[in-house]
Amino acid sequence: MMAPNMKDVAKRAGVGLGTVSRVINTPHKVSPPTRLKVEKAIKELGYYSNEIARTLKTRNTRNVALVLPSIWHPFFSGFAYYIENYLDEQNYRLMLCNSDGKPDKEVYYLEMLKEKKVSGIIAITYNQIDDHISSDLPIISFDRHFKDDVTCVTSDNLKGGEIAAKTLHETGAKKLAYVGTINNRIDSEVKYRRIGFENYVKAHGIDHFIYTVEDPIRDYDAFLDTFFKRHNDREGVFVENDNLAKKLIKKAETLNIKIPEQLKVIGYDGVEETEFFEPKLTTIKQPLEAMAKASVEALIRIIETGPKVERIVLPVELKQGKST
Amino acid sequence: MMAPNMKDVAKRAGVGLGTVSRVINTPHKVSPPTRLKVEKAIKELGYYSNEIARTLKTRNTRNVALVLPSIWHPFFSGFAYYIENYLDEQNYRLMLCNSDGKPDKEVYYLEMLKEKKVSGIIAITYNQIDDHISSDLPIISFDRHFKDDVTCVTSDNLKGGEIAAKTLHETGAKKLAYVGTINNRIDSEVKYRRIGFENYVKAHGIDHFIYTVEDPIRDYDAFLDTFFKRHNDREGVFVENDNLAKKLIKKAETLNIKIPEQLKVIGYDGVEETEFFEPKLTTIKQPLEAMAKASVEALIRIIETGPKVERIVLPVELKQGKST
Repeated sequence: MMAPNMKDVAKRAGVGLGTVSRVINTPHKVSPPTRLKVEKAIKELGYYSNEIARTLKTRNTRNVALVLPSIWHPFFSGFAYYIENYLDEQNYRLMLCNSDGKPDKEVYYLEMLKEKKVSGIIAITYNQIDDHISSDLPIISFDRHFKDDVTCVTSDNLKGGEIAAKTLHETGAKKLAYVGTINNRIDSEVKYRRIGFENYVKAHGIDHFIYTVEDPIRDYDAFLDTFFKRHNDREGVFVENDNLAKKLIKKAETLNIKIPEQLKVIGYDGVEETEFFEPKLTTIKQPLEAMAKASVEALIRIIETGPKVERIVLPVELKQGKST
Repeated sequence: MMAPNMKDVAKRAGVGLGTVSRVINTPHKVSPPTRLKVEKAIKELGYYSNEIARTLKTRNTRNVALVLPSIWHPFFSGFAYYIENYLDEQNYRLMLCNSDGKPDKEVYYLEMLKEKKVSGIIAITYNQIDDHISSDLPIISFDRHFKDDVTCVTSDNLKGGEIAAKTLHETGAKKLAYVGTINNRIDSEVKYRRIGFENYVKAHGIDHFIYTVEDPIRDYDAFLDTFFKRHNDREGVFVENDNLAKKLIKKAETLNIKIPEQLKVIGYDGVEETEFFEPKLTTIKQPLEAMAKASVEALIRIIETGPKVERIVLPVELKQGKST
């Protein structure tokens, strides 16, 4: 049954719409018998409680949920820091959800969104929750696409891959490799790091190798061991993210491979959390603050003016360290 | 003026309390002239809007604000991770506020608490906001006391200081130092790290030096330079927190001081974020997860059963690394 509206009340009470409105807004101006009829109809139809529900459904709580795998990861805590800053500037508040890879928790917040208990969601998710995502909901997806498209904010992964390949090659590395993961379950933007790298090395006829396993990497040690055993002739590697790049450098050190003399390494992310890591990593820096700002701005546009799907790609840059 | 209640309405309308109640709940059972009188009184006194305000004031939104200096710091992001987990288990949600040291933002959330827009606050704050804190509000303070006392959750800083001094001394360091800060603006629990250290060294007649500056340290390099210039005879140092301990170790390395052979170092915190730091730091480990759990449990007790001020001190332990 459709929710009753003011028209239904008027019909049931046998009065005009204006009378119903007066009973609701200025009851003392309506004759008692008419008021009784209208109030009876309102009660029988459950009109008021429905009104309350409707008010709830159109309200803006100004609460935005940030759904991410774990706030404990420095890339995500940095992102959350900026998101909260920009939300606060616009008088919105941040609700934090660590999904820990559990789709149930993500779906819980998506349900809250549908019930207008939160006004929007910024999501970093690697789960198969496509059935719960809809392009008419205020959702910003970070680095990821769904079956039904929503606004996606990402860094220029393609360009980043190209810059990495170009930099490794131009600083003297002849034999290159890409080290990372592939993800066949979800449509992630991360693959463009590899594709950008491949585009460049193929276009320039550079000796290269793509070394990947299905995401997530379960045994880093074995993964990196195998890489160095099979591909110890490589002179430059572009690694999918800084964390993996640092693990690769530490592994290389145990094998007495000198960084950068024998092997040049470039990572991806560039979040400032490597104060104590040596050698300082050369990396493709994602504009974390700009990405957070763009996410907040796009989300508030949707919340306040209605659905609009965008693909927002922000520029990356090489951050020179000591590993190239 | 006090907010009008049902009695005020009855008085103004010249009817009994029961009549007011019937007009509100079963208006069709009240004679039209009486209803008109009561409705007029309700309107003139603004009784309904006040009722709504009252309902808002007694509700439990199940939203808890976590106020901390910056989610970007690994100790705080780890704490936030566990807080969110335990809140979620109890069907509460987390709102995140990075104060960035700005008291205004903290006060904003304290005002939200007073208006029941959030149901409770867990606060890590170093600002002078005592005037906004009250023992009858659901607030959990981490590591910090206010003029009006609220429940404080902390690790056993006193014991931690003793363990550090004892460990340094028993592993052969004869001349000890405490390196850290003092804070004269607020009543922080952190001072007990120094007091515990002092208690132990004084009780055992150990040569020691307390090297502190007023919090916050503005120039780490100058602070540590001065320490090593003036106190280069020290054989063991207990440093106020891991981050400062790591900076001290890096400074020692530039001065060719061998860790731990020439200088043993113990930090405080023990959050697992030192994957790539060498030598692995020996530290006093705070039970981060247990502290988060205790904070959530104490807060929910207050929200659901009323004010109760507690001081919750959780045990620490030595986490052995390679710096002692």
